[in-house]
Amino acid sequence: MEILTRIDALRARLSDARRMGCRVVFVPTMGNLHAGHMSLLASAKQHGDYIVSSIFVNRLQFAPNEDFDRYPRTFESDCSMLAAEGAHIVFAPDETVLYPAPQVYMVQTPQVGDELEGQFRPGFFRGVATVVLKLFNIVQPDAAVFGKKDYQQLLIIRGMVNQLALPIEIVASDTVRAIDGLALSSRNGYLSEGDRARASDLYKVLTEAAGLLRHGRRDFPVIEKQSVEMLGRSGWDTDYITIRRQRDLSSPDASDESLVILGAAKIGRTRLIDNLEIGLQPT
Amino acid sequence: MEILTRIDALRARLSDARRMGCRVVFVPTMGNLHAGHMSLLASAKQHGDYIVSSIFVNRLQFAPNEDFDRYPRTFESDCSMLAAEGAHIVFAPDETVLYPAPQVYMVQTPQVGDELEGQFRPGFFRGVATVVLKLFNIVQPDAAVFGKKDYQQLLIIRGMVNQLALPIEIVASDTVRAIDGLALSSRNGYLSEGDRARASDLYKVLTEAAGLLRHGRRDFPVIEKQSVEMLGRSGWDTDYITIRRQRDLSSPDASDESLVILGAAKIGRTRLIDNLEIGLQPT
Repeated sequence: MEILTRIDALRARLSDARRMGCRVVFVPTMGNLHAGHMSLLASAKQHGDYIVSSIFVNRLQFAPNEDFDRYPRTFESDCSMLAAEGAHIVFAPDETVLYPAPQVYMVQTPQVGDELEGQFRPGFFRGVATVVLKLFNIVQPDAAVFGKKDYQQLLIIRGMVNQLALPIEIVASDTVRAIDGLALSSRNGYLSEGDRARASDLYKVLTEAAGLLRHGRRDFPVIEKQSVEMLGRSGWDTDYITIRRQRDLSSPDASDESLVILGAAKIGRTRLIDNLEIGLQPT
Repeated sequence: MEILTRIDALRARLSDARRMGCRVVFVPTMGNLHAGHMSLLASAKQHGDYIVSSIFVNRLQFAPNEDFDRYPRTFESDCSMLAAEGAHIVFAPDETVLYPAPQVYMVQTPQVGDELEGQFRPGFFRGVATVVLKLFNIVQPDAAVFGKKDYQQLLIIRGMVNQLALPIEIVASDTVRAIDGLALSSRNGYLSEGDRARASDLYKVLTEAAGLLRHGRRDFPVIEKQSVEMLGRSGWDTDYITIRRQRDLSSPDASDESLVILGAAKIGRTRLIDNLEIGLQPT
């Protein structure tokens, strides 16, 4: 596995790989890799034969009050994991490479980018879409893998790829969970021991709501409200628990069959997100 | 020369051309071609060996009060001219191909996109940048040619390509003028006979201002004001005449050596733009 930090060097390697007929699959990351990322790599290997991952903590997607500075950087261990999982290249630019000047050309995302995560993290999806587009233009992969853990991000990347006519297949990869159900996330590392013990509450609340939906309940606002109250009783500060259409994250009606319940909540100082897809049988 | 209307068909042809080692050069147009466009084609042939042009009147860059509906469409004659000039492919999608759904992912341009043309045509550069990015993603050219006639557009496309890390060389092509100096433009077709006779006033006023700058004048606001007054006396309604830095269209000071004077003004119902680059000797 090669670690490259410059765009020119990366493009030269990729040009060689393409000339050999390789199908390039890209897995962008912000580092601090865990088993969830390794699952993205495993998906990547099923969709191509030349695996490029990137490690870049993207300042553009952090608001000034957020955790850009303390976001965990574990470069050596990340590279070991990527090598063990069979990545061919790690692209690890520093900020002077990716943002040599302040980034002023941005991807403007639609309304859905201002909701949910976008509401609580203004500018987040604009920052994500811009860096992902830029990385796509650098790597020019045939396919790219994103986790369903960041469900809204996946939807927005798909929308961007479709609307900007990028010739890239977007592969969705299932969320990986700890034994108690907690979705793996780099931010889990912020949890105190006590908070970690209760961190799977979010998953459990989503699971319970999903069960109600599967059993025919369609009073979405009531289910959402009860879920928030359950989290509140367990000491969580909830940003949102919301039931949406999988297709476009719009609000569903009783006839919709492909739903997703998404949640974001803080336990202690740590903000976690999670979601569950719910495929309903027609009633 | 082949005329293609579908993205898949175009990509298949381009894939063949690239496999044969061709260097693809792209010349996007809105049709109604004239000698100015043919000059872009000539530049294209100097920068590659497989020439793709596009014809698409881009609704996104027209404000509701503008001339989208009456913009001249001359498809057959355009194709004849492109064939004669040696284009290999004309990509001529209709709106259902390029905008199958309302375009909601857009390129957000920086401050310079809200000035000059952007001030008088709100949303213009966002619409231009978005369609150009989309066409770039479809054609994936090695180089693309843009005319200096649309100077601010050229600057913004260059900025976008640079900041979004697109691997495309942007080639600037000189403005082609009628014998009296009028810059060729599809919108010249809107001019009445009487207006056409006076349409080169804009060029003449810019030329006179450029002469003053070459002779050492640095009182930019005075020169701009006098230019607007001269046009006013000839019956023009001027949007702006402004002296800027070539580099970034910021306001120059007396020590700047690479200037451009840009103008936009209406004669009758027709709005024309033009500009002149001025390279000054250090004094």
